[in-house]
Amino acid sequence: MNYNRKLNMGLIGGGPGAFIGDVHRKAAILDGSVNLVSGTFSRDKTKSQKAGKTYYIKPNRIFQDHKMMINNELNLSIEERIDFVAITTPNNSHYQIAMDFLDVGFHVMCEKPMTYNVEEAISLQQKVNETGLVFGLMHNYTGYPMVKLARDLVRKGELGEIRKIVVQYPQGWLTTPLEETGHTQASWRTDPSQSGGAGSLGDIGTHAENLSHYITGLNITHVCADLSMMVEGRKLDDDANCLLKFENGAKGLIHVSQIACGEENNLVIWVYGEKKSLEWHQENPNELLVREGNGPNQIWRRGNEYVTEVSPAASRATRLPSGHPEGFLEAFANTYVNFTDTIRSRYLNQIPKSEMLDFPNVDDGLRGMQFIDSVLKSAKNDQKWTKFLTINK
Amino acid sequence: MNYNRKLNMGLIGGGPGAFIGDVHRKAAILDGSVNLVSGTFSRDKTKSQKAGKTYYIKPNRIFQDHKMMINNELNLSIEERIDFVAITTPNNSHYQIAMDFLDVGFHVMCEKPMTYNVEEAISLQQKVNETGLVFGLMHNYTGYPMVKLARDLVRKGELGEIRKIVVQYPQGWLTTPLEETGHTQASWRTDPSQSGGAGSLGDIGTHAENLSHYITGLNITHVCADLSMMVEGRKLDDDANCLLKFENGAKGLIHVSQIACGEENNLVIWVYGEKKSLEWHQENPNELLVREGNGPNQIWRRGNEYVTEVSPAASRATRLPSGHPEGFLEAFANTYVNFTDTIRSRYLNQIPKSEMLDFPNVDDGLRGMQFIDSVLKSAKNDQKWTKFLTINK
Amino acid sequence: MNYNRKLNMGLIGGGPGAFIGDVHRKAAILDGSVNLVSGTFSRDKTKSQKAGKTYYIKPNRIFQDHKMMINNELNLSIEERIDFVAITTPNNSHYQIAMDFLDVGFHVMCEKPMTYNVEEAISLQQKVNETGLVFGLMHNYTGYPMVKLARDLVRKGELGEIRKIVVQYPQGWLTTPLEETGHTQASWRTDPSQSGGAGSLGDIGTHAENLSHYITGLNITHVCADLSMMVEGRKLDDDANCLLKFENGAKGLIHVSQIACGEENNLVIWVYGEKKSLEWHQENPNELLVREGNGPNQIWRRGNEYVTEVSPAASRATRLPSGHPEGFLEAFANTYVNFTDTIRSRYLNQIPKSEMLDFPNVDDGLRGMQFIDSVLKSAKNDQKWTKFLTINK
Amino acid sequence: MNYNRKLNMGLIGGGPGAFIGDVHRKAAILDGSVNLVSGTFSRDKTKSQKAGKTYYIKPNRIFQDHKMMINNELNLSIEERIDFVAITTPNNSHYQIAMDFLDVGFHVMCEKPMTYNVEEAISLQQKVNETGLVFGLMHNYTGYPMVKLARDLVRKGELGEIRKIVVQYPQGWLTTPLEETGHTQASWRTDPSQSGGAGSLGDIGTHAENLSHYITGLNITHVCADLSMMVEGRKLDDDANCLLKFENGAKGLIHVSQIACGEENNLVIWVYGEKKSLEWHQENPNELLVREGNGPNQIWRRGNEYVTEVSPAASRATRLPSGHPEGFLEAFANTYVNFTDTIRSRYLNQIPKSEMLDFPNVDDGLRGMQFIDSVLKSAKNDQKWTKFLTINK
Repeated sequence: MNYNRKLNMGLIGGGPGAFIGDVHRKAAILDGSVNLVSGTFSRDKTKSQKAGKTYYIKPNRIFQDHKMMINNELNLSIEERIDFVAITTPNNSHYQIAMDFLDVGFHVMCEKPMTYNVEEAISLQQKVNETGLVFGLMHNYTGYPMVKLARDLVRKGELGEIRKIVVQYPQGWLTTPLEETGHTQASWRTDPSQSGGAGSLGDIGTHAENLSHYITGLNITHVCADLSMMVEGRKLDDDANCLLKFENGAKGLIHVSQIACGEENNLVIWVYGEKKSLEWHQENPNELLVREGNGPNQIWRRGNEYVTEVSPAASRATRLPSGHPEGFLEAFANTYVNFTDTIRSRYLNQIPKSEMLDFPNVDDGLRGMQFIDSVLKSAKNDQKWTKFLTINK
Repeated sequence: MNYNRKLNMGLIGGGPGAFIGDVHRKAAILDGSVNLVSGTFSRDKTKSQKAGKTYYIKPNRIFQDHKMMINNELNLSIEERIDFVAITTPNNSHYQIAMDFLDVGFHVMCEKPMTYNVEEAISLQQKVNETGLVFGLMHNYTGYPMVKLARDLVRKGELGEIRKIVVQYPQGWLTTPLEETGHTQASWRTDPSQSGGAGSLGDIGTHAENLSHYITGLNITHVCADLSMMVEGRKLDDDANCLLKFENGAKGLIHVSQIACGEENNLVIWVYGEKKSLEWHQENPNELLVREGNGPNQIWRRGNEYVTEVSPAASRATRLPSGHPEGFLEAFANTYVNFTDTIRSRYLNQIPKSEMLDFPNVDDGLRGMQFIDSVLKSAKNDQKWTKFLTINK
Repeated sequence: MNYNRKLNMGLIGGGPGAFIGDVHRKAAILDGSVNLVSGTFSRDKTKSQKAGKTYYIKPNRIFQDHKMMINNELNLSIEERIDFVAITTPNNSHYQIAMDFLDVGFHVMCEKPMTYNVEEAISLQQKVNETGLVFGLMHNYTGYPMVKLARDLVRKGELGEIRKIVVQYPQGWLTTPLEETGHTQASWRTDPSQSGGAGSLGDIGTHAENLSHYITGLNITHVCADLSMMVEGRKLDDDANCLLKFENGAKGLIHVSQIACGEENNLVIWVYGEKKSLEWHQENPNELLVREGNGPNQIWRRGNEYVTEVSPAASRATRLPSGHPEGFLEAFANTYVNFTDTIRSRYLNQIPKSEMLDFPNVDDGLRGMQFIDSVLKSAKNDQKWTKFLTINK
Repeated sequence: MNYNRKLNMGLIGGGPGAFIGDVHRKAAILDGSVNLVSGTFSRDKTKSQKAGKTYYIKPNRIFQDHKMMINNELNLSIEERIDFVAITTPNNSHYQIAMDFLDVGFHVMCEKPMTYNVEEAISLQQKVNETGLVFGLMHNYTGYPMVKLARDLVRKGELGEIRKIVVQYPQGWLTTPLEETGHTQASWRTDPSQSGGAGSLGDIGTHAENLSHYITGLNITHVCADLSMMVEGRKLDDDANCLLKFENGAKGLIHVSQIACGEENNLVIWVYGEKKSLEWHQENPNELLVREGNGPNQIWRRGNEYVTEVSPAASRATRLPSGHPEGFLEAFANTYVNFTDTIRSRYLNQIPKSEMLDFPNVDDGLRGMQFIDSVLKSAKNDQKWTKFLTINK
């Protein structure tokens, strides 16, 4: 088999009106080592064909059902068929689609939150472990170089013991009942049957938890949550505020909102240690602010040698020289680079290098679902603290 | 009696090593309408004399005991004696000093938190109401023009109904056990016998509550708090995180810290309404960020006509043209201007204009003590929500 | 001929150690409508093959000489052969390569500055006009959505008559004699035989001129320049400061540097009009600051409806929702989108829509060379003002 | 004579509609060691009396002519009479008033620009030198702590040799012909008979020159200037752009404007050295940005120990802890502190400590007038470079 070729990608989702499917498509091909060759872009045949055509995909590899797609792919030669599939549909379908592709041997990249509930997540984790296939979960914010730098500064002990973690993720796009206007993104995200039990908590709260875990490595042990539905008639939370306890005694807050009028995608994390602290803003991602007790604040900027010295992972996730801003798409693409490099290692029967494994996986997905579950339980609980149950291996 | 003169000020506190006493002194005289003429700057006679001398105060009006000072002042002519006293000692002595000055007819400006506990606060409120004297409480952050603008934008309904309020107040100066080094400020603030039951909560958490109330006018109905003593051996909270419910259904968070390594005085408030939202940073106080659903973010800047049009109070609190930054001291001084203008009105038997009454008073002080009390109760409570009891008139 | 296919791209340059060639490659394919199929990545056969292999290009379409490449491509079927070539070599070779490709009918995307001198530029302009082929010049900064918004605000008269334009472009990477270490980028850029008569002026000063012209539409009539070689032994300017007069009476400054220690790529433009003014920072490209005489400063942010309403071009140049930052690569890709859409229009015998023609072309390239020429003349001139000669059609 | 008293200040200017006179008044008394006791606030008796009354000055020490004031003061006891006078009238009267006060032995603080022309400046310098009196010139921006830190970083060689200096000072308040509306500030500033030959150049360009000189210690040797009157009918420059050569071979730009629509007081300086560079923004004065070749950008913030270690002068100019913003008035007051401490030293027959002499003096004033003169000459000169003649002792 010739491995000196681009990997073949299949895509589930990404039809007209979709947001994240199109981002997967562009991010995956950004570095020129992946071809999108096949897809189920919509359950509507016409829509799926239309979308596929704009992506220059051959009509006979455009489907309206992921099982049809699987059957078709299996009949192609190994070099023609997809190497992996990206699942970018609403939450309630992730599990079944992922299971079906894994069952027949395809690697999977899945949007977050990973599944509809914890049970599905446990079952999916088991399947991934059994099959040994490569499974990626798209918490794209950990693909940003400065987030990797943040993690590496913490790992090296630069901050000392972590004492406090604050993550905010305010958005304003659901300030009004947008779902009543037929807006695709708003509709499924506010519909419990498609999203699961959580609204803003599942959509963006899971990013907050993931980011906190990625940078600090700390597990949450207890949550104390307050969820609100601020827009009348909305069935899922559009605002979520949560106190946290971490395993090492650190305290924290995660607060997210989709009714924070005028906010765009203002994910920010603050990590306070005994010796230094960090602050990172997703909307200004090329910088990392480092504060210390008695010295000037430091602005670490992507693409510099002094970053590489501390964080080879940040450097590996960098395409452009310093001062040439990189953004959301590049962070997304970084996750794909590690994911596909891991697949290539498998093809070559090599053990993937640790830097290749630097992408969110099924364990992160399960922990995310447990986070949702714990917060939902806490929201209904009169007791202050609800234990965060983790059963990660 | 000649009222065309500077008012005479007495000061309690402000001796060597003091921080806030000296700020009161400079803020009060900044506009040239107040003279500092008398004071008890320390309980140590030598220290008090030394401090008073640097302030060019006559030796016979420098004391080491506020009662001696009261007796002396009462023996002076009305034009010579102090018009008001500023109390800037540690929390545990505010009440008695204030009561003693009020009892003999002096107006009082008091540092926050107002008293050692709620009982004292209730008693002080009663005394102020009985005497009819002017009582100011120094929550200086409400003296900033852009905070007044924020309040006025909310009052005019520009934001619509308020849905979420977030206030952070991280400091880093107690990251290490500074109190063990003999540091004056650190020592009394971490000592329950001088500070009361709250550490960071009382010192800066009360500012957060006050700021939120000033801008939005909303009362908190329930709190859910988690207090920590992150530095080993510390007896009072150095980190406090709190979920909030407001009377109108809005939700909120107040989180403050004095172990947020590298932070200086990073008080920030975000107010999210149905139509617009606000963001204000104390460390960059000349700007107010206004976000709306579909329009450019707006940076309102102090000193412009468009600010005056919306907020005469912001304009009244402005000394310099736009682009000439004003700071902490000017905000402090603004509180004094309103406080002393109210006193002058009394002298002239006039009803103070509403803009003169725009300074924190004894009711704000009582509410602040109730906030501390509620949060301390919540911190010990296994139940999620603790009712915030307000008994303001 | 089937036009429902990706366009085929050839690349000249982009071998090991190259910077901008690799950016062209990624930017061109970012949207999934271009395939890189052929290239001359280096004049060294081994290096070229090595680079081509990492791009998954077939060995028989990897060359070390652009003429060999041309001959080969001409022998391929129309659907197989390249549709256009991107020229990303040092300045001194742009002209000949471009002429050779144009001569046989290929469309061309060329790096800036367009040629080695004005004479080549005039000749190239003539060739492009004669052939009618599509010629793009990569001044990528005009690909940023907020730059397009800036242009459209000016065009709509929002600023009124323009009075002053300031453009800075400080970099610090040549603060030390980096060229003496064998650094590829530094070596050719500081070598007159490869770069032409201008150093920082040609490399980044031309971007400054182009950006100013793109946003305001104003031509420079006179320049007054001071060029320096701050690093000992350097043969081309590493710092350039220039006063400007514009055709409408506006005044301006362009100042660029490559010895501005610690600066990265800090291109900023300020445009002051009679009614409003603009400020845009390349390192924070998703925002445009608009100031007016008596109203809050406005921060216009990419991806919002209110931007689309004023500037469909900004919207067309946007892939992601607001708050999901886009960067340098996306701006670059926007230039490719318009360039390739124009090529597709030609294939379909359609007149390209005006929005497709929104990319820098051969006229911009000539004007840029005239700018370099005028500034070089001024630098040697004792007279204050040197006329800027434009002979654009 | 008792020197343990506040110093007595007289003020010339500062009547109704005045800006800078009132700032002098507040700044001088801010620290509680100066009393304003006498003044000529307007040439109109009623206006002067009215202004003086609001400052609580005794009616018999309020004048409408500075010579009457001098005569009166000389008749008072040494302890009663003024120690110094502050001159805050339009430029054309500075010289005579200063001479008159110096002649009879009063110390003088004078607004900038120092005089109406170079000749007056030379004569005034001579007078100051002859009398040995203390003469301060109010370039208040050098009073900012972070400007002092910048100077001290340069002095310690942290930046290495300076290569480039850029100063901008855009304002927008004269975008329209405001002088035609009777606006006090606009009227005299645009009137050659009161302002001298320079408009924006004299009003704010001199600040730019002074700031550059203060921080770097470098003298300008040549200027190349372009002045404009953008508003029709205006008689003095409202926009000025200038290339600079410095004595050490550094290059620079100063560009100022009063028609930069929407700008407030956006004075910014960038100093680029061989090893590091600096950036300071007057509108955000509590921070100093330091860039170096290969390390994180540093934000030095006022009030921290690490600032004190490098710059005792910055520390001396600081009243409040870090994070409690200081502004324009405090910087102004810092200049007064050094000026009055120098006067006190004289009284005590002590040689003032070097830190006390850290305020702009008559030599700075003369250099400023020579800067204006050189730039005006250059503006009329067809030759590119005009020599900057300095005849400072």
